[in-house]
Amino acid sequence: MHEVQKQYKALTELAKTTELRSSAVADQLAHLCSEAAKFAEELTIEEVNSKVSGKRYGVLRRAADGKRSRPINLDRYDAKLAEEFLDTRGLADIEDLKTDERGCLLYSMVMSFCAANDILKSGDQKSPGTFFEIFVGHLFSAKYELDPMKHIQVLNLDADSKLPTDFIFDLGPEKSKIHLPIKLSTRERVVQVWAHQRVLDGVFGTERFKGVLVILAETNYQGKDNSVVEVCLPKQWAVYQMFIARMFRVYYLDVPDKYRELGKLYPFIQVRDFADFFDEADKIVGPPETL
Amino acid sequence: MHEVQKQYKALTELAKTTELRSSAVADQLAHLCSEAAKFAEELTIEEVNSKVSGKRYGVLRRAADGKRSRPINLDRYDAKLAEEFLDTRGLADIEDLKTDERGCLLYSMVMSFCAANDILKSGDQKSPGTFFEIFVGHLFSAKYELDPMKHIQVLNLDADSKLPTDFIFDLGPEKSKIHLPIKLSTRERVVQVWAHQRVLDGVFGTERFKGVLVILAETNYQGKDNSVVEVCLPKQWAVYQMFIARMFRVYYLDVPDKYRELGKLYPFIQVRDFADFFDEADKIVGPPETL
Repeated sequence: MHEVQKQYKALTELAKTTELRSSAVADQLAHLCSEAAKFAEELTIEEVNSKVSGKRYGVLRRAADGKRSRPINLDRYDAKLAEEFLDTRGLADIEDLKTDERGCLLYSMVMSFCAANDILKSGDQKSPGTFFEIFVGHLFSAKYELDPMKHIQVLNLDADSKLPTDFIFDLGPEKSKIHLPIKLSTRERVVQVWAHQRVLDGVFGTERFKGVLVILAETNYQGKDNSVVEVCLPKQWAVYQMFIARMFRVYYLDVPDKYRELGKLYPFIQVRDFADFFDEADKIVGPPETL
Repeated sequence: MHEVQKQYKALTELAKTTELRSSAVADQLAHLCSEAAKFAEELTIEEVNSKVSGKRYGVLRRAADGKRSRPINLDRYDAKLAEEFLDTRGLADIEDLKTDERGCLLYSMVMSFCAANDILKSGDQKSPGTFFEIFVGHLFSAKYELDPMKHIQVLNLDADSKLPTDFIFDLGPEKSKIHLPIKLSTRERVVQVWAHQRVLDGVFGTERFKGVLVILAETNYQGKDNSVVEVCLPKQWAVYQMFIARMFRVYYLDVPDKYRELGKLYPFIQVRDFADFFDEADKIVGPPETL
């Protein structure tokens, strides 16, 4: 087993027994991402034909067997920088950086592991998903100094019912609670996010939970012409925001421009860079702004 | 290419150019299922360890390479009967049968193709899904003498928006319209069905569309002990029915008992055998019953 996979295994075991917000989880995430970045640095990056306006994409390629990784946004990715930052500072220091630099570093950390895992283990979507959930879950937990729940009791007159959910942060009666789904990409499955928000609204009162969706990217590699596209369904998102529930924020590590535009028109879905979260974390759980 | 696959291809091409309710589609469905049943009859059925109380399951096995099909409910399956019925009568005559017999025949037709395709083409989930959508879509279309739509215009003050949906039947102002999602199985993806119903309720008025979900089965084969389980999430379904939208009917070709029970308690999700549809088709689109 490669060192990256060993460290991934150690992370998942640690996350089962230790608080997600703990510095032990931060250190293990840093160690894993640093190892993955080292592995990634030794591979060639091949630029591919980007069909996404204004963005350059590439894939990691292992010469020995020709295996390639998922698409990587070349303007955001710097494995060396991520490795140095993690080795000399640590995940907690990400907050001290300027928002732009923070965004690139977070993207590089996450993508180092995902791309390394693509090469090391064929057809494995589960590990990158679990890793990303722990990565984002840790950053939220550390920021709010509180671990999330993964089940929630649903009020039911005749029977007990526990609804499995995405991460839920309950910051007490004076703050908004947070409903935090975390996805590598969404496509047609995204309606689940709005549906779960709708259930929480129905059970606990509208917008008692602020819905915050965190997504890695919407890129798709097409083998036939060695190209990368972004798969976006902005009109469907608008319909969900109008008729199912309201999501408060959608954060991407690699924001599709088509979704960023959604913030400008009704129903005003606020799609932003995940780096922005650290600057507005208090606003998310604070009282609504008055007019 | 095997004859079953040729006939499947012919069906998908026919469905693109011909009305779904046409007798041409009925004939091609009958021809395909009959060919699949012939193929299935030549294979061995191996009983497996059923962990589903009160139901016996088996798989088709091809001796030459050991390939196996998805689980088959042995008490409902009779490929020979399906083949004879299709060769001597036809799909339209299914209505004339008693409900029990009709249920077994429909199950045998659908399962013959799905199981045959499992053996003939490894890892192909798309063909059984497409086949099942055409099969059920045809039976609904023929019953209501009307072809379904697959897109619907969503009212939007500032912009045009077309929402891709499952099948929609618009029977005019004096009848309920039908929202018809069709799935081989559901698992955690099922929340999509309630979410889409919610959008239709929001856009066009609550329960203007009757939600009718048709599912093949919820069985899962487990290699480790050669067993079959049913994967059911009845408490989650109840939460969706309470807080997202109301589905009017859920029909199965192989009903899980845990879901059938849902009809007895609030929120009263009516889960029935798909054979029942033919007896209550008028009720689905008729006015609500008075107290």
